[in-house]
Amino acid sequence: MQKVTIGIDLGGTNIHTLVVDHRGKVLGRDHSPSEAQVSLRRVIDNVAASAKNAARDAGIELADICCLGVGAAGTVDHKRGVVSEAPNFRGWRNVPLGRELSRRLTRPVVVENDANVAALGESWLGAGRKCSSMVLVTLGTGIGGGVILDGKIWRGSAGAAGEVGHHSIKYDGIQCVCGNQGCFERYAGASGLVRAMRRQGNSKLRGAITARDVYLAAKAGDQQALAALEEYGVLLGVGLANIVNIFNPQLIVLAGGVTNAGSLIFKPARREMKRRALTVPGKTCKVVKALLPEDAGALGAARLALLSKR
Amino acid sequence: MQKVTIGIDLGGTNIHTLVVDHRGKVLGRDHSPSEAQVSLRRVIDNVAASAKNAARDAGIELADICCLGVGAAGTVDHKRGVVSEAPNFRGWRNVPLGRELSRRLTRPVVVENDANVAALGESWLGAGRKCSSMVLVTLGTGIGGGVILDGKIWRGSAGAAGEVGHHSIKYDGIQCVCGNQGCFERYAGASGLVRAMRRQGNSKLRGAITARDVYLAAKAGDQQALAALEEYGVLLGVGLANIVNIFNPQLIVLAGGVTNAGSLIFKPARREMKRRALTVPGKTCKVVKALLPEDAGALGAARLALLSKR
Repeated sequence: MQKVTIGIDLGGTNIHTLVVDHRGKVLGRDHSPSEAQVSLRRVIDNVAASAKNAARDAGIELADICCLGVGAAGTVDHKRGVVSEAPNFRGWRNVPLGRELSRRLTRPVVVENDANVAALGESWLGAGRKCSSMVLVTLGTGIGGGVILDGKIWRGSAGAAGEVGHHSIKYDGIQCVCGNQGCFERYAGASGLVRAMRRQGNSKLRGAITARDVYLAAKAGDQQALAALEEYGVLLGVGLANIVNIFNPQLIVLAGGVTNAGSLIFKPARREMKRRALTVPGKTCKVVKALLPEDAGALGAARLALLSKR
Repeated sequence: MQKVTIGIDLGGTNIHTLVVDHRGKVLGRDHSPSEAQVSLRRVIDNVAASAKNAARDAGIELADICCLGVGAAGTVDHKRGVVSEAPNFRGWRNVPLGRELSRRLTRPVVVENDANVAALGESWLGAGRKCSSMVLVTLGTGIGGGVILDGKIWRGSAGAAGEVGHHSIKYDGIQCVCGNQGCFERYAGASGLVRAMRRQGNSKLRGAITARDVYLAAKAGDQQALAALEEYGVLLGVGLANIVNIFNPQLIVLAGGVTNAGSLIFKPARREMKRRALTVPGKTCKVVKALLPEDAGALGAARLALLSKR
């Protein structure tokens, strides 16, 4: 019988679960609320229920699964299956998520950071299919990062590597929530785009605007919004050039809502990256859009389970 | 018979060669000028002669050596043994250094970037002995970097990884020779210390001062020089925090002349790193001084040769 596994993407709001075979073919799925605001126990119960629902959807028994994989937002100690710290799940500190899920599902469970599994998913079946080294950069409210080196997740010594959103691109710049100043995510996260928009004079967009408002206005031809996206793309390119000079990856994959603006941000970002990066790594690195925006996390979690020796 | 090898550190000015056994015990050595200003052929002849001298010093035959290792300044294509680009050796482009040396010495030769072999040397026998992940940061005129992940050099997809000196910590900052703006090495390289000194008013140090002048004045109690080192240390800490958040290494090893200032720069640099880095990676990363400033490159090159399957 071919190997089948379950990959789970556990976010602050939703649980996204896929049953896949060893080639990544989706055999079943489930989508549930995580209810992080209720309690820790509720979240874990919901994850276990989602795994069972997805197995039912695929017409398989949990007993046929060798191992399950979970990607969770936060700092994860992969070896012990523990979520050390999770800003999106209030009060989660040193949660033994792997052990708790394994007990409920009577199967081995591997746990990993959500950006890391998303990177693994893109590298397995998405934009990074032909690459052994890539960095996934998720542009959202914050900026997440997942680093794949020689085909494997680079976790760092404490499971905290790849926090590219929290590297300073302006040491005396904007104060970040993390305590640092001038973090990349202050400029190239959603708030950076809104700030770039506010810097444009005479805009029709006023009040509490979102990154999406700016992008939609730009699509409709708004000159200020177009200028804001250009400015935003340049600052995105600054951080990408740093990633390129530090990691020399084959590929940077950009994910997150703002990538829907397409060439309006990719063009200035790529140009600025090439302008700033050293010749060899700059020339050899491509910057592309994620191919699996919805499923990358669950697929990467499944991949991790398949690779696991448990 | 135990495995013996030769490690060579090839710099723009000097060639430093060591004969070592499989434990890194030094059995012989040679130190020669590289004469990079004469010609490419002269440099390669000098490296070959240095290897022969060191073998003679150790009382061994070249035929007893399984493989030699060379660390060379520049971008190195390790797989092909080619120096793609080397700013310190004018006119070197795509130099097949491995093949040329192998021909002259009739032994296999592996070639690697100099910062990378220095990192490997520190990780083998120096400050990183007990660590599987470390980043070596060499503070000189420029800033070099070597990244060891899971005990191995991270080379990147084109052999250009680890250029931590050329990541921007101020996107609208000082123009760098590399084309980028606000590079870490503009602030934490030797010129950064001189600039910090110039910012102090009323200094006795005037005219064409060097980083060494500042450090010596500080040791003699000069208040402006002490303030300059403090300011420099803080900017060093900014870049270290970025490295910590991106790689989450166990250890950062600082090398280069300016590290002789000891706690005058280590103290502000560590404090600023901890202040800016995320909690988990910041807490778990130590920042220490290199233990093998002279020999790290040659030892690392020897280690690479020992690990090589040639």
